[in-house]
Amino acid sequence: MKWISGGVTAPQGFKAAGINAGIKKTRKDMALIVSDIPGTIAGTFTTNQVKAAPVQLDLQNIKSGKGQAFIVNSGNANACTGKAGLTDARLTTAEVGKVLHIDPKLVYVCSTGVIGQRLPMQKIFDGIHIAAKGLSVEGGADAAHAIMTTDRIPKEVAVEFTLGGKTCRLGGITKGAGMIAPNMTPSGLHATMLCFLTTDAAVSKDVLKSVLADAVQNSFNCVTVDNDCSTNDTVLLLANGLAGNKTLTKSSKKDLAIFQEAVQEVCLKLAKLIAKDGEGATKLIEVLVNQGKSAKEARQIAMTVANSPLVKTAIFGTDANWGRILCAVGYSGIPIHPEKIAIILGGKKENEKSYKKVVLVKNGISSGYDESKAKEILSNPEILVEINLHQGKSSTTIWTCDFSLDYVKINASYRS
Amino acid sequence: MKWISGGVTAPQGFKAAGINAGIKKTRKDMALIVSDIPGTIAGTFTTNQVKAAPVQLDLQNIKSGKGQAFIVNSGNANACTGKAGLTDARLTTAEVGKVLHIDPKLVYVCSTGVIGQRLPMQKIFDGIHIAAKGLSVEGGADAAHAIMTTDRIPKEVAVEFTLGGKTCRLGGITKGAGMIAPNMTPSGLHATMLCFLTTDAAVSKDVLKSVLADAVQNSFNCVTVDNDCSTNDTVLLLANGLAGNKTLTKSSKKDLAIFQEAVQEVCLKLAKLIAKDGEGATKLIEVLVNQGKSAKEARQIAMTVANSPLVKTAIFGTDANWGRILCAVGYSGIPIHPEKIAIILGGKKENEKSYKKVVLVKNGISSGYDESKAKEILSNPEILVEINLHQGKSSTTIWTCDFSLDYVKINASYRS
Repeated sequence: MKWISGGVTAPQGFKAAGINAGIKKTRKDMALIVSDIPGTIAGTFTTNQVKAAPVQLDLQNIKSGKGQAFIVNSGNANACTGKAGLTDARLTTAEVGKVLHIDPKLVYVCSTGVIGQRLPMQKIFDGIHIAAKGLSVEGGADAAHAIMTTDRIPKEVAVEFTLGGKTCRLGGITKGAGMIAPNMTPSGLHATMLCFLTTDAAVSKDVLKSVLADAVQNSFNCVTVDNDCSTNDTVLLLANGLAGNKTLTKSSKKDLAIFQEAVQEVCLKLAKLIAKDGEGATKLIEVLVNQGKSAKEARQIAMTVANSPLVKTAIFGTDANWGRILCAVGYSGIPIHPEKIAIILGGKKENEKSYKKVVLVKNGISSGYDESKAKEILSNPEILVEINLHQGKSSTTIWTCDFSLDYVKINASYRS
Repeated sequence: MKWISGGVTAPQGFKAAGINAGIKKTRKDMALIVSDIPGTIAGTFTTNQVKAAPVQLDLQNIKSGKGQAFIVNSGNANACTGKAGLTDARLTTAEVGKVLHIDPKLVYVCSTGVIGQRLPMQKIFDGIHIAAKGLSVEGGADAAHAIMTTDRIPKEVAVEFTLGGKTCRLGGITKGAGMIAPNMTPSGLHATMLCFLTTDAAVSKDVLKSVLADAVQNSFNCVTVDNDCSTNDTVLLLANGLAGNKTLTKSSKKDLAIFQEAVQEVCLKLAKLIAKDGEGATKLIEVLVNQGKSAKEARQIAMTVANSPLVKTAIFGTDANWGRILCAVGYSGIPIHPEKIAIILGGKKENEKSYKKVVLVKNGISSGYDESKAKEILSNPEILVEINLHQGKSSTTIWTCDFSLDYVKINASYRS
């Protein structure tokens, strides 16, 4: 597997466009991603009980396991809009079907933005026509731009790998920023994060579903920005088979491992890009919990630390206030032995391979570390918070970001 | 029951002092509160597994049900300080016992401030001597000042009531501000909130314990500032019996109800003062969940909404972004029917009795309300977020505050 440039149009047979449909004033707000031929599709969706209309519709259509196009708008989430909102979502996929001459049930719609307002349907219809005309194999980057809300940078990645001698590609785009605490299950996940994955590999429906579910669990579900789970979270993976490999099934063990790695790595990279670009974020934080009794317990502790506003503001302020970390471990709900715990802080620049580290806590109390060294480590853009519980063999990593003044500024005036 | 002026020295036979012991540069940082005679005591403490040294010591001493003095320092939490910290706590109560000529086991110690640093013991000892000399019946307000950390205002209240013909008083002081999400059980609660209650009523040990536990559950445990539970939370109630009433037991039903009301009202008022004075808070928020299936479910939903950074930043920004409220209800983990939910927003000035209200959501979708009216309501200092689930008969109220730029500023540089 190797990283290549591009995103959703890196695999063969995919075209995309990103345009302004007038939902936002001037910025791109609509993406259309289309495969030349119908393919196999898998998806994971928010577990929030309040599901946006597009999520409700996609959940119906994805039962077929088939898909050909993604239509996405930003600026309006089409959530909490009742039956009318569901009709709007349906009209959107119908229009895409009409314009592209494909079955509307092969069209998956996603929306992100303000909750509770009806979509401006005439703008949506007009936008679909403009986007369809603009479809091209160079359009992936525009699509990555068009799905952004409070994101500061577009996020796209692609990889190349070989299945049965055939060169295959997998590309993806994502958006995140706020309302990020995904907790997705296959057909059931959460947070305003959207991710669209495309591949030209031929993959059976069942394999696609299980590979995506595993990858999401180990990537997007390990990211939290603000512990708010969205009504709209969606990850979709469309495989059109144009690479010409023999269709991947459960029995093709070696190729399956290669494909799993590709999907996992692409999802993880995109998930980390979301954490790094969290609303107002100035630092990417890796919370690593080691030596837990079980992965589930380690995860709950890591999530509690990663969601602590006090931990996140301290890291923003380059203050090695480890008491807040130990305090969060203590209220995580998981039985611990405070007197056994070690806390290590790490910091690195973006392209550095390993963290510079300092041990803050040994046996539950201060190690007598050098505050100025800790401050220096915390001034790096990538921070490691490593917690060693000394009560088992399980580890988990959760990705988050610091909590800055800009988070509040952005969210105090989100709708204005 | 009537409200009177004063705090912990309002009841007969209590003296207090608040002084600067040099833990902080110039502000008061040590409070001493003493009863003329030993009394009955009850307490609730943090449920965080990482318990500060003073909490560990108090948990041992409170088994006797007897107490006579509270010694409190701010500026240093004496948490995560290992065995040495526990020794420091013990030396503190020993010094108070020596200076006041009382059994050190009747002395309860509390600390609040930075976690992980040893107490400056010489300053503590010297401070105890200064405080003991300064004890007076006018010292309650100074004590209220001395226990503050990032609090902007001291918090003290007192009430007067009659038990068996005798006039009794109950007074209290508290501090809160950050790391506030108390979840206390009798001898087991949480958040850096401290509360000291004094009364001259004569109350049996068992009654004192159960009355305090109920009051804490319905007051401090209904307040959240940042969902971070402290290592140091403590509520202590000392009853010296000097009012001369017949000792209150379970069988004195009428008097018991009067005493319960007094403790409950004092705790609720102090708890609301904590929420209002939350770190960086500009608004007090009452989250009221109605028509839930059970009080437990209603509470979990109210807590989820009250802890949502997105809801709290929107209210800070006077933005009636109700989608975030409904979204939080949806991920609370409690089964709901989104299409039945109503959301009402209220606002009032500090001294107004009732909220001006606007219905934002009916049957899970926008009511078509007037945004400018909602904005006007949100510009009040006291905000109501009322959520009607329409699935049962249980209600719960949780108190919180908005999430402002100042919260981040305060917590990014807490130790500097």
